[in-house]
Amino acid sequence: MVRHDDEQPTLTVGLLGCGTVGSGVVRLLADHAEDIAARLGARLVLGPVAVRNPSRDRDVEVAHLVSDPDLVISDPDVDIVVEVMGGIEPARSLIVGALERGKPVVTANKELVSTLGGELFDLADGKGVRIEYEAAVAGAIPIIKPLRESLAGDRVRKVLGILNGTTNYILTKMTEEGVSFAEALGDAQRLGYAERDPAADVEGFDAASKAAILASLAFDARVVAGDVYREGVTRITATDIGHARRMGYVIKLLAIAEEVDGAIGVRVHPALIPAEHPLASVRESFNAVFVEADGAGELMFYGRGAGCLPTASAVLGDVVSVARALLSGERASNGRAHRPATIRPFEDTTVQYYVLLDVADQPGVLAAVASTFGDHAVSIRSVWQEGTGDLAQLLLITHAARERAVQATLHDLRALPAVRDVASVMRVEGGEV
Amino acid sequence: MVRHDDEQPTLTVGLLGCGTVGSGVVRLLADHAEDIAARLGARLVLGPVAVRNPSRDRDVEVAHLVSDPDLVISDPDVDIVVEVMGGIEPARSLIVGALERGKPVVTANKELVSTLGGELFDLADGKGVRIEYEAAVAGAIPIIKPLRESLAGDRVRKVLGILNGTTNYILTKMTEEGVSFAEALGDAQRLGYAERDPAADVEGFDAASKAAILASLAFDARVVAGDVYREGVTRITATDIGHARRMGYVIKLLAIAEEVDGAIGVRVHPALIPAEHPLASVRESFNAVFVEADGAGELMFYGRGAGCLPTASAVLGDVVSVARALLSGERASNGRAHRPATIRPFEDTTVQYYVLLDVADQPGVLAAVASTFGDHAVSIRSVWQEGTGDLAQLLLITHAARERAVQATLHDLRALPAVRDVASVMRVEGGEV
Repeated sequence: MVRHDDEQPTLTVGLLGCGTVGSGVVRLLADHAEDIAARLGARLVLGPVAVRNPSRDRDVEVAHLVSDPDLVISDPDVDIVVEVMGGIEPARSLIVGALERGKPVVTANKELVSTLGGELFDLADGKGVRIEYEAAVAGAIPIIKPLRESLAGDRVRKVLGILNGTTNYILTKMTEEGVSFAEALGDAQRLGYAERDPAADVEGFDAASKAAILASLAFDARVVAGDVYREGVTRITATDIGHARRMGYVIKLLAIAEEVDGAIGVRVHPALIPAEHPLASVRESFNAVFVEADGAGELMFYGRGAGCLPTASAVLGDVVSVARALLSGERASNGRAHRPATIRPFEDTTVQYYVLLDVADQPGVLAAVASTFGDHAVSIRSVWQEGTGDLAQLLLITHAARERAVQATLHDLRALPAVRDVASVMRVEGGEV
Repeated sequence: MVRHDDEQPTLTVGLLGCGTVGSGVVRLLADHAEDIAARLGARLVLGPVAVRNPSRDRDVEVAHLVSDPDLVISDPDVDIVVEVMGGIEPARSLIVGALERGKPVVTANKELVSTLGGELFDLADGKGVRIEYEAAVAGAIPIIKPLRESLAGDRVRKVLGILNGTTNYILTKMTEEGVSFAEALGDAQRLGYAERDPAADVEGFDAASKAAILASLAFDARVVAGDVYREGVTRITATDIGHARRMGYVIKLLAIAEEVDGAIGVRVHPALIPAEHPLASVRESFNAVFVEADGAGELMFYGRGAGCLPTASAVLGDVVSVARALLSGERASNGRAHRPATIRPFEDTTVQYYVLLDVADQPGVLAAVASTFGDHAVSIRSVWQEGTGDLAQLLLITHAARERAVQATLHDLRALPAVRDVASVMRVEGGEV
């Protein structure tokens, strides 16, 4: 309920969760209260904050802690509900409860938005209130609003993202210090960049959720996390990184969303990108989103993808937007198209490939390998061979080819007597169009 | 007037100017009509287009050309006015006329916004209508909305921008091909990146207008183009670029806006930035804006800063935003703070310096030079000397120091008998904080 206690109206923010991100929200809301009031023409004050254990010590001061989150969404004084608990339930029910009461919601919950976002957007539109989620993808980087608003008069063709800071940190260490995946992961865990169970990051689940959200916005369609093809980074070796560098590439875990002939393909996997591509210089735990649009051309958005204050900054940006909308009296339409997505079968992806083979160092091997590629109409762009006596390593980069054809090629290569091992297979992005 | 002819409401866009950007707007509006209608829930149609000479051939088809721009703003069917004529008058009077009639305005006019923006924003706020200008800074790159909205809950400390594509193209050629300024400029002119009279670009006027706009948004204050300290790129030599590279730096024309202790400093000048800084890899005619904020940390926005379709994409993004606001019935507040800016005197800028001296190659010179720096409390960070027989070159990079103290140091250096010439002086950014 917008109160007009003194000269300026006051809006109350209710908070669901007060962990890393929540405490950042509390801190920024207090630190920047005056700036925000000047920008908004209204004061934003912190109302009830729901936490699992109100008696626990916290490093931020909260006057009104409650253990029952329903008290936040049902509090008539709460104008805006911020959900930073994460996970599907009870976050989903609480957001539904807030929207049903006509309260706008700001959430940082990528799992929820990437699986059940459509349901929440429909409900919000029906109620004429906003639901915002800038912090759910790429932390502090403004990417949701630019895709939805700044590019609203354009057509996005492709989105390439480095959306997981943990794996980007690991790959940066492997690239710059030559350490193994296991060493780099251990390092990331010691620094708190990686969880003790790192699967969500290193297997690409985290990036896949974010990719689904970006694809939905970029192509005005409902793409969910389950639509995303996914491979992690655990099998990348120092050898791969060295070979990539020699060929002028850097290896990154990329989230890729593209629309071709009305079908949407979304995938998360390691990929080689040219060293001069803007994404190649995104180091450490930074994130970036590279967008190709018809009119705008190439755009890139770069910044911190996680962390207490960066994520809280994105949440508060949304809170101010939502507050402005409340004050202007608009009836909100969340402006998302509700077109169901036509998902392209993964085998129809057209992409370049890097293939590393251990072969017998004998005459005729290159011819046999090359003709196997040719049999499947996969065209070779560059090849590099190094003999080591009995064995040789043969490294090939293909032109863009159908995933299906490359997989068939790999199957046949494995059957060639001279091919001892298909040592590594990785896709190549950011080069040929 | 929003019409409801068939199932979807229709909004009419009136266009002032149909040059490079205007024809891009016409083209994108036609090409993306279906997508926009799906996103907006309303059709955007092109209404009257005012041009100087309606009988001239154009490469886009326009049904309703007029030579009197007043017919566009006074047309009761026109819901949104787009101004892409450029220059102060008649653009200003026409925008004022549109706002006074309650029509929202989208403009790409950096000169106008950076000098008389405050007057226009006040008028728009008074009328409760929007005025948007995303295309006025950094072309296709979404930067106005991110600063105003996404970072509305944060505090921006510093903005570093590569805001002029022409000079960035010239500096890229000089850096990568070792050509002189004159050669690179000629190249840019042949390719149409630079005007026949290149002063607006190479003397930094264009970047200064954009810097004023960004500073106003970043610090919620009215900064105008006249507040911006400005130096161009015409005196940069291949020698400077070579020395910079040897020390691990790249030379860029930077627009820099910062707020320190409540005072705002805005300046445009060439600067050395570390080769590993994200701005260093912004090549060719691309633009980028690097933002340092308390919560978000470091952000960068990268893309095309000019050109027909990139600029038109930004204009259309604004048009769709404005249309959405019209349809939602909001009473717009443009949300700009109206605080007058406290501008820091340029001599109070604290910045690192690169100084290249031609000195006599004899004992005691380094000591004399070093003590001159010491006399003004300017601390030296690194020094490099190369003797060439009779003469030597002495290159120094300082720690951050007051502009005033550095200028006094340079004055005294010029008076030293052993110093033959202060060959080059440039600021260094993106390193020390």
